[in-house]
Amino acid sequence: MDFDLILKNGRVVTAAEVLPAGPEIGVKNGKISCIGSGLPTGSSTKAIDCEGAYITPGGIDSHVHLAQIPTADGWETGSRSAIAGGTTTIIAFAPQSREDTSLWPVLQSYHDKSRAQSYTDYSFHFILTNPSPSILRDELPLLASQEGITSMKLYMTYDTMKLSDAEVLSVLMTCRSLGMTTMIHAENHDMISMIIAGLEARGNTAPYYHAIARPRVAEDEASYRAISLAELVDAPVLLVHQSSPVAVAHVRDAQTRLLPIHAETCPQYLFLLSSELQAKPHDHFSGAKHVCSPPLRHRVDDLEALWQSIANGTFTVWSSDHAPSQYDNPEGKKLGLVDGIPRFSKIPNGLPGVETRMALLFGQTEACRPLSEARLTLPRFVQLTSANAARLYGLEGRKGSIAPGHDADFVVWYPGDRGRRVIKQENLHHSIDYTPFEGIEVGNWPRWTIVRGKVVWDADGDGIVGEKGYGEFLKRGKGKVVVGRTGGLPRGMLPEERGLWMDHKPYE
Amino acid sequence: MDFDLILKNGRVVTAAEVLPAGPEIGVKNGKISCIGSGLPTGSSTKAIDCEGAYITPGGIDSHVHLAQIPTADGWETGSRSAIAGGTTTIIAFAPQSREDTSLWPVLQSYHDKSRAQSYTDYSFHFILTNPSPSILRDELPLLASQEGITSMKLYMTYDTMKLSDAEVLSVLMTCRSLGMTTMIHAENHDMISMIIAGLEARGNTAPYYHAIARPRVAEDEASYRAISLAELVDAPVLLVHQSSPVAVAHVRDAQTRLLPIHAETCPQYLFLLSSELQAKPHDHFSGAKHVCSPPLRHRVDDLEALWQSIANGTFTVWSSDHAPSQYDNPEGKKLGLVDGIPRFSKIPNGLPGVETRMALLFGQTEACRPLSEARLTLPRFVQLTSANAARLYGLEGRKGSIAPGHDADFVVWYPGDRGRRVIKQENLHHSIDYTPFEGIEVGNWPRWTIVRGKVVWDADGDGIVGEKGYGEFLKRGKGKVVVGRTGGLPRGMLPEERGLWMDHKPYE
Amino acid sequence: MDFDLILKNGRVVTAAEVLPAGPEIGVKNGKISCIGSGLPTGSSTKAIDCEGAYITPGGIDSHVHLAQIPTADGWETGSRSAIAGGTTTIIAFAPQSREDTSLWPVLQSYHDKSRAQSYTDYSFHFILTNPSPSILRDELPLLASQEGITSMKLYMTYDTMKLSDAEVLSVLMTCRSLGMTTMIHAENHDMISMIIAGLEARGNTAPYYHAIARPRVAEDEASYRAISLAELVDAPVLLVHQSSPVAVAHVRDAQTRLLPIHAETCPQYLFLLSSELQAKPHDHFSGAKHVCSPPLRHRVDDLEALWQSIANGTFTVWSSDHAPSQYDNPEGKKLGLVDGIPRFSKIPNGLPGVETRMALLFGQTEACRPLSEARLTLPRFVQLTSANAARLYGLEGRKGSIAPGHDADFVVWYPGDRGRRVIKQENLHHSIDYTPFEGIEVGNWPRWTIVRGKVVWDADGDGIVGEKGYGEFLKRGKGKVVVGRTGGLPRGMLPEERGLWMDHKPYE
Amino acid sequence: MDFDLILKNGRVVTAAEVLPAGPEIGVKNGKISCIGSGLPTGSSTKAIDCEGAYITPGGIDSHVHLAQIPTADGWETGSRSAIAGGTTTIIAFAPQSREDTSLWPVLQSYHDKSRAQSYTDYSFHFILTNPSPSILRDELPLLASQEGITSMKLYMTYDTMKLSDAEVLSVLMTCRSLGMTTMIHAENHDMISMIIAGLEARGNTAPYYHAIARPRVAEDEASYRAISLAELVDAPVLLVHQSSPVAVAHVRDAQTRLLPIHAETCPQYLFLLSSELQAKPHDHFSGAKHVCSPPLRHRVDDLEALWQSIANGTFTVWSSDHAPSQYDNPEGKKLGLVDGIPRFSKIPNGLPGVETRMALLFGQTEACRPLSEARLTLPRFVQLTSANAARLYGLEGRKGSIAPGHDADFVVWYPGDRGRRVIKQENLHHSIDYTPFEGIEVGNWPRWTIVRGKVVWDADGDGIVGEKGYGEFLKRGKGKVVVGRTGGLPRGMLPEERGLWMDHKPYE
Repeated sequence: MDFDLILKNGRVVTAAEVLPAGPEIGVKNGKISCIGSGLPTGSSTKAIDCEGAYITPGGIDSHVHLAQIPTADGWETGSRSAIAGGTTTIIAFAPQSREDTSLWPVLQSYHDKSRAQSYTDYSFHFILTNPSPSILRDELPLLASQEGITSMKLYMTYDTMKLSDAEVLSVLMTCRSLGMTTMIHAENHDMISMIIAGLEARGNTAPYYHAIARPRVAEDEASYRAISLAELVDAPVLLVHQSSPVAVAHVRDAQTRLLPIHAETCPQYLFLLSSELQAKPHDHFSGAKHVCSPPLRHRVDDLEALWQSIANGTFTVWSSDHAPSQYDNPEGKKLGLVDGIPRFSKIPNGLPGVETRMALLFGQTEACRPLSEARLTLPRFVQLTSANAARLYGLEGRKGSIAPGHDADFVVWYPGDRGRRVIKQENLHHSIDYTPFEGIEVGNWPRWTIVRGKVVWDADGDGIVGEKGYGEFLKRGKGKVVVGRTGGLPRGMLPEERGLWMDHKPYE
Repeated sequence: MDFDLILKNGRVVTAAEVLPAGPEIGVKNGKISCIGSGLPTGSSTKAIDCEGAYITPGGIDSHVHLAQIPTADGWETGSRSAIAGGTTTIIAFAPQSREDTSLWPVLQSYHDKSRAQSYTDYSFHFILTNPSPSILRDELPLLASQEGITSMKLYMTYDTMKLSDAEVLSVLMTCRSLGMTTMIHAENHDMISMIIAGLEARGNTAPYYHAIARPRVAEDEASYRAISLAELVDAPVLLVHQSSPVAVAHVRDAQTRLLPIHAETCPQYLFLLSSELQAKPHDHFSGAKHVCSPPLRHRVDDLEALWQSIANGTFTVWSSDHAPSQYDNPEGKKLGLVDGIPRFSKIPNGLPGVETRMALLFGQTEACRPLSEARLTLPRFVQLTSANAARLYGLEGRKGSIAPGHDADFVVWYPGDRGRRVIKQENLHHSIDYTPFEGIEVGNWPRWTIVRGKVVWDADGDGIVGEKGYGEFLKRGKGKVVVGRTGGLPRGMLPEERGLWMDHKPYE
Repeated sequence: MDFDLILKNGRVVTAAEVLPAGPEIGVKNGKISCIGSGLPTGSSTKAIDCEGAYITPGGIDSHVHLAQIPTADGWETGSRSAIAGGTTTIIAFAPQSREDTSLWPVLQSYHDKSRAQSYTDYSFHFILTNPSPSILRDELPLLASQEGITSMKLYMTYDTMKLSDAEVLSVLMTCRSLGMTTMIHAENHDMISMIIAGLEARGNTAPYYHAIARPRVAEDEASYRAISLAELVDAPVLLVHQSSPVAVAHVRDAQTRLLPIHAETCPQYLFLLSSELQAKPHDHFSGAKHVCSPPLRHRVDDLEALWQSIANGTFTVWSSDHAPSQYDNPEGKKLGLVDGIPRFSKIPNGLPGVETRMALLFGQTEACRPLSEARLTLPRFVQLTSANAARLYGLEGRKGSIAPGHDADFVVWYPGDRGRRVIKQENLHHSIDYTPFEGIEVGNWPRWTIVRGKVVWDADGDGIVGEKGYGEFLKRGKGKVVVGRTGGLPRGMLPEERGLWMDHKPYE
Repeated sequence: MDFDLILKNGRVVTAAEVLPAGPEIGVKNGKISCIGSGLPTGSSTKAIDCEGAYITPGGIDSHVHLAQIPTADGWETGSRSAIAGGTTTIIAFAPQSREDTSLWPVLQSYHDKSRAQSYTDYSFHFILTNPSPSILRDELPLLASQEGITSMKLYMTYDTMKLSDAEVLSVLMTCRSLGMTTMIHAENHDMISMIIAGLEARGNTAPYYHAIARPRVAEDEASYRAISLAELVDAPVLLVHQSSPVAVAHVRDAQTRLLPIHAETCPQYLFLLSSELQAKPHDHFSGAKHVCSPPLRHRVDDLEALWQSIANGTFTVWSSDHAPSQYDNPEGKKLGLVDGIPRFSKIPNGLPGVETRMALLFGQTEACRPLSEARLTLPRFVQLTSANAARLYGLEGRKGSIAPGHDADFVVWYPGDRGRRVIKQENLHHSIDYTPFEGIEVGNWPRWTIVRGKVVWDADGDGIVGEKGYGEFLKRGKGKVVVGRTGGLPRGMLPEERGLWMDHKPYE
């Protein structure tokens, strides 16, 4: 019982509770070895005095786009930004393009992009845009069993990525049989295309019209459809970046009925309104900084409904959807300025956020606000930022929990009020030239970020103290449902019905 | 004030009430001229003594397939069957095939098929399977204004007819601008295709598997999607032949929010269960007689939920979806016997029902059952079988009501218990060799059917006494919403939003 | 076929439709005798040329308080006010006080108050505050069968009137067995009492605090409870003057399940907000004019939800709840000024409204607004103001419909725009010194009001031309449900269950 | 770091997760001192080899009636039964009778009954039947701060205990201000009284009629009312022993809106149907064994809906409602045999269940069933049987969790299949002569029960090895909400409204 690292005087927060003051955390070989009182300090033990501050599991950001386009963050800057904000694991996307007839080169390409670059541990979700029978039948099983990639993302919109319902069903059945989680971007493509065409035909092309082009009903419909498709074939899904109260109510209803339907949201949908996209005096294009999909919504009521779903358990995951482009770059957001004329449909979608994700939510807990004004509890913070993603994406038992046997990934927050900060672009570590959250005050900020027992972020010291390449690629296991369960039956269906037309084995 | 016909001693039922006994109905030139007490009987006036029986408006069956395939009813037999069952107006389909680049030849073809053939008045809905811009832009306005065709039907399923969401949206916007009602067959095509493929791959091809191939969730999803599409562009729709309680609940919710979403159901979904499709001893194929889409559902609870929606006002229209094929005909239902092996996917869909529609529902009113066991009221019967379809499909003021100025179309029922009948194929007048309702007892049956003042069905006399060709083609006016109203806004949308991308004129 | 009166050139509106132009209405002996074209005009026939205007059934105001307190309207002024606003039948209250051990003297007293006083036909609802077994068992049957009083009203709040749940159940069972409709004022008494005590203890006694003292949740809870009590014993009820969207949603849900739960609302809850109760500059008490219960609600959203329920059919009856007190009268509203200090809890509850009820709603129909801005259709106007109350309260076949055999009670509105008016106290005919609707513009006003074939209000002529005492007391028959039906079963109960503990005969 | 006890080779289950195999639990001075790998075994350390079995926190049964009536269990037998079934903490009731003008003697009396009698740790909830102002104002604060009694239970039914809504509101406001949790038995008293009177008047008095006398709607209504009362004054409540799906749906809706509404259910409502109450051949009274309130429900669907609410998180607490009477005892259940005639209304309510509670639920987890057939997860089992009650009732940080600093209360289950048992009365340890769960097979049973580090139940050894009197009285702290939060606002209320009439301090 000698330890490499002991965290003392912290308040440990788990997905279930805030532990009573007292216990220390002993780390050995990058793992949590022991939690208890009076751990022995050996000669080689480093001790950190947390001064009464909260310790939460290292953040898992399971929705991050890195190195997909030139003006975005690559692995180095993206993961550097992550650790500065308390995120210790990133799951980024490896997108198939329509022409890719095999996923292996895609995998190789993203291993190449990330190898020896990362400050955080990381893994990949594939984005499937051409789920051919051979990929589903031959490649996915090997990717899961050999390469540890156990999640796929699908799009119901975007010309270059949209899958048909038939394709979605094929993927869902395959993923189900492999214990994979399927992520779905749910917006009705045809609604949006029609509106964009209508807006452009009328010359309504300023950035603000992006928020008009993708109305809530497009998300509501596609979310309901995605849930129905998953219900039919009994497959777990996660609906990414939900922004519409009605779509979230569909999820709530599905969860009430025990369907394994998970939901994700992101800080932008809880903190920002579509008014951000409007033209400013002398600046008719800067709204482009806030162009993301789904778009920011119009009303404070929309935000309030999402906060409610944060607290009542409907949302499973709080991710960043970090998908930025530099603003002042002709290959970045400025692509949307065509001959000096704003064209919202040409603006690259997406915002930076991997660094600000954790603090924006932590600031809404009872750690930073009176209990009656807190938007969520600390255990719920842990569920949303770390524990649920670990379980859903096959990292359970390794990430996402402060318990013996897990990787020693932590965020140590500042005690008391000492971590209060105003978000400013100048303090961030990404390669992007703005933050959409500029000027928002957060009640705390990570003082130390620790990855497998190693301090990689020291806010009061040298800032980034981790090393590029320290982060490891994570081969993940099978995903597990966080809400609901498989085995449920669509309303009106007979118990034996599914087995007549699909291979319906029990889901483990 | 002299009349061609006076109905005496009847109890007049309107969409609002059962009139007190006493008033007589005076008919002149095929129109209702007067309702009142003590109408003068002239020398040329024919009087009918109703002996205290109920008089309802002549039935409008707004969902009838005639002459689309060889083994079905054509106009002569279909309309003959209709009048024997109390239906005086039929709206049948004129289907575009994918290759038809213009609707005019289609119209001509169906005028040819029906001309001088019909016992009932009639009109056409177009079925659009290739809604090209030129058809929408150039042809529909003329069809509405010159030809009096003011309704279109779309399919969300079937390989040869399915439209994409984009096409549905185009049609909805055009129909809206022309005051047309859009009918939608809502089932998720990809779900069903996948299940059929799965069933066939496993050799599950008996007629019963048809009921497995199209589960309720396929209807639920597509109904929600159709409602969402209509909501986006503010267009009235009618969802045809609904059979699933959840789909109907979506309609109820839409109606609560005042969306102009109408719903139709048919006798088969209220009286029959999927067990009808199962193999009988020594007869593994006769279930084919009950193959229709959506399929018959599994449980009595499904039926009960629909009866509830009949009574609470959610359903707008009670139609037959008369779409039969002869059973014992190699080009009819027997197409589904391939080399002696049942193949449910090859069985022509559809059932006969135009003759039994009215009596099956009338038997559930307080005219035939104690009030506490009645499934619906008499005014609701009139709404469902006649008045609502008249309003929705542009016949208001002419059909569907017993009030001065309307066509003198009536059903005179038997007084008291004298009309009790058991439905038997041998008594029906279609060209089909079975009825799916064989053996069901109904509490009453039309004694006289009257079209524009002329008795065409005399149950106690010569039966069919109308003449082929008496029925006229009806040029219809603009449709009007029966429930909800246009002008509503999808949740989360700003009032000015629609106008930014579509031509959004007030709907009259 | 000779008539006393013929209405020509009108557009007849029924509960189902607007008749095509053309038919005339022939009246004989105070009854509608005939509706048809070209009615013969005899020498003694009076003809009215409606100039294309709408004709609706005379209004039935089924929630009116007359002569209950000294500073209110009595029969003469109340019914005079009614006819000037298009109301031809009033059902007013005959309240039992706690001490009354028999209802017969109460009935006598209200016959005395109304005899030879009324301009309109009228009847009484009893208010039961002491429903003793002998009253229920011995008196109600006679009151129904001999006196034609077939409705009872109960209060769930007010110290002097509140019944316990047990008493409500007793009344419901008795009323059910007699075919009586039970009206219920549903607010949670204990909630309100506690809040009033709390407000008073803190010195919060201005009129505005009345709107704080009776929050929506008090109405929501009591409405749900009333529905549950009615559901248990299978009795039809009407919830009076609903003002809360959630309470109305409970009704909608009950109606979806076919429970015979009816709902009433009043103009004040659709047109006015609680801000009316706030102190004005130099006038800290005039908010008392708007003190009624339930109180006016806070937000425009509350109003919008009620308008939606007007249009979607949830509301059954639109009444005035005319229950005024003179404002500038020490025995009227000024009772709430105690030693110059406002005391909201001492202000007599209630507003005048019998005269403005019809026009306020008519102005929201497509007769006065473009269709896409109309709040309701003309047939719905007829249902809400007349037809539904007739059916529910036992006047079906006699009042509430323009059809042969009914009393010739009409409102003839102005054609086109000629009836546009601004509501002003100086133009009204009640004995009250203000109207809460002062300054509201309505799109039309009754031009003629006709009671049993006699013009009693001639707006362009002498105004009130009816005679005091012309109005007759109406012995009513059994009520009939307008929505839902009896015979339904509470969820989770077995079909045979009710019969084990109550006398559960079929309801006619 | 030396320990009194080490649990080795167990799988630790927390409210959040099942820990990876490996870590041991070190206990010192009755507390969990350390969880980690390779804990040092000292000379005085007792080690238990769990053989890979699950270890869960000791059960907290927060709804137990002991020593309230003579034929029930007292502390000795009740707590003995508890430890044999894995329950280590009991919260039993100390009921005020209507005549008790102070709670102090009641407290004294229950201390007297329990002192030196208990095998488990224990505390008291008060039952308030006469919540006078002096008790609320003067006694409750002292009881909370000095005596550690921080929860009150109220009844909305039973003649001897029912409180009015006004009394409920008073208690809720007081409890809220003191951080107390209020438990509510929600059934509509007047409905039930009326039905009982009706049943008795018709001679329907057999035990089975008990299930008729308390229909689901009585629970639905009272639950909705209780939620509304709590919502009004912003007070946390727990609805005890819920049995009706609709009542539970009301809770779900409240939780969605973040109201602090907690729900409890009990094994009898998930495993047993009302058919248990029916007469057996030659035994018309044994149904009395299953008389409890709310009663067992009629249909399997009722059970299924509750199981769904177990899994989806709606239920907060799984308690026994252990409230037995001996069956074959003239002062017990046989009180319901009056002169040999069954009288259900005289049968003492309640069932035994403190010993079977844990195993009945554990058997439904994935520990005992394939995952796709498991009714709930192991973490959810911990929440329901232990963790949530600890938080809600002021034992957080001390009971209900396997984490350093907590009391060392555990259940060690059998590994694998070795714990499979059939429940038999002969194996139980209560003083009651039957179990309602006779013959039900459970997948596991506690092998060891450990209270504060001491083995008190050794299934394979001497069975009960704890000592009477070892159990300590627990002074509890303030309760904390498990779901929702205080600070929410009833719909339609203004933010400042509550403060105008109540003392509305932030709830900690």
